[in-house]
Amino acid sequence: MNRTELVKEIRAKASYLCIGLDPDLNRLPHHLLEHENPIFEFNKQIIDATHDLCVAYKPNIAFYESLGVQGWIALQKTLDYIPETHFTIADAKRGDIGNTSKRYASTFFEQMSFDSITVAPYMGIDSVQPFLEFDKKWVILLGLTSNKGSQDFQFLQADGKPLYEHVFRTATTWGSPENLMFVVGATHPEQVQKIRTIIPDHFLLVPGIGAQGGDLAAVSRYGMNKDCGLLVNSSRGIIYAGEGEDFAAHARAAALAVQQQMAALLDKYI
Amino acid sequence: MNRTELVKEIRAKASYLCIGLDPDLNRLPHHLLEHENPIFEFNKQIIDATHDLCVAYKPNIAFYESLGVQGWIALQKTLDYIPETHFTIADAKRGDIGNTSKRYASTFFEQMSFDSITVAPYMGIDSVQPFLEFDKKWVILLGLTSNKGSQDFQFLQADGKPLYEHVFRTATTWGSPENLMFVVGATHPEQVQKIRTIIPDHFLLVPGIGAQGGDLAAVSRYGMNKDCGLLVNSSRGIIYAGEGEDFAAHARAAALAVQQQMAALLDKYI
Repeated sequence: MNRTELVKEIRAKASYLCIGLDPDLNRLPHHLLEHENPIFEFNKQIIDATHDLCVAYKPNIAFYESLGVQGWIALQKTLDYIPETHFTIADAKRGDIGNTSKRYASTFFEQMSFDSITVAPYMGIDSVQPFLEFDKKWVILLGLTSNKGSQDFQFLQADGKPLYEHVFRTATTWGSPENLMFVVGATHPEQVQKIRTIIPDHFLLVPGIGAQGGDLAAVSRYGMNKDCGLLVNSSRGIIYAGEGEDFAAHARAAALAVQQQMAALLDKYI
Repeated sequence: MNRTELVKEIRAKASYLCIGLDPDLNRLPHHLLEHENPIFEFNKQIIDATHDLCVAYKPNIAFYESLGVQGWIALQKTLDYIPETHFTIADAKRGDIGNTSKRYASTFFEQMSFDSITVAPYMGIDSVQPFLEFDKKWVILLGLTSNKGSQDFQFLQADGKPLYEHVFRTATTWGSPENLMFVVGATHPEQVQKIRTIIPDHFLLVPGIGAQGGDLAAVSRYGMNKDCGLLVNSSRGIIYAGEGEDFAAHARAAALAVQQQMAALLDKYI
């Protein structure tokens, strides 16, 4: 999916919601465990209940990988089931020397047909570039993450600027707003305004609202650009909103609440 | 495997060689393609031909993941085949928020029984700590990597020290020389001496000799400590030393040449 198509979807749905599909066998509604593939069945019902409210789905690969072969089958079935109108994100946080990153890129972009993948920046240009060489595919590079450990290295000051700012400035010489986004955690709204002066045009993938406590209104106020420029993710807050047989209806209600807030914010800021 | 056991193996074999099992279907000897599982057959013959010359095997997960379900089966069979005397490294470069890293740790340590996993430091403490909570299991944290892109961020100066030094100093407060190693590329021998003043006791996993051009003698001179403290990896230089039906004999010859050099270096320095 290219940028124009993504922006069109955001406008049509008045939503920049990304739903994290991170299914945990221990948290699935019990009645699903009878299904041949409970993880896929869970995802399918979540997708059925929410696809008109969101523009992206983001499976975190750890949750599938931990289930072995069954998990990879569930991931592929999920990906095949997500409508083509939706932007798909492999939340994999990969990154390795060139010939290995090329291998990861081929896996997620060609074999599994994801639109994008999250990538860690530590190893620099040749660990990222192989992912940027695919038409209509995207790198979503870790910039400023939502977790507590983001304090350990990302805020280290080098030449008067925090490390995460170096990541933005350097990586924008590798890719463009047409194939490169950045992860910026919703738990850092005070930094978002400054970040927008460095990367005004790039899309930001914003995790951390919901279970991690980030603030959607603050992130939207400081982070939105003329094309919206945001994909805001919620995983646990939506997919585990209910626990019983009606879990999908609860997930829809939770997604609808976020989408309505987003519609108002879009009206207000662009 | 704990540290005492690993050091004992190194002394017994006069080797600190780690062999990277990164099988590429396009580079396998043609006659193996007839096998039911060519990747496993390739690894099996490499292991048979080299196990007395090395102390560790390091499958890079990208090469298995890219083959889908067949790849994961080959990985598990390979892992089951590696003798228990050998230290196993999942070269996966993972790292995510706490609940997700916990999931990755369970996958590689409990389900697949790897002794260790490579982890990226960018997301900080809560992305690394879940891997450190397993008995006799190891984190191998990216410190100073062997690739060209290591110049982009790892050498940024913060408070008068390069970023990679901050990673060493901070991470040694999270783990000990009993459960934490660091990746230090053989392409940076001039930094290794300095690194040893910061982390005298930790093991270093050293990629980059062979195809990437690093220098074994220089790295050993500056990097060895009283317990050896090094695992030096070669992947392509060994596993693709030959192309025909006798590929395993060529791999053995290549591994033997490295091991003999290592035996001499161990004699010289410890």
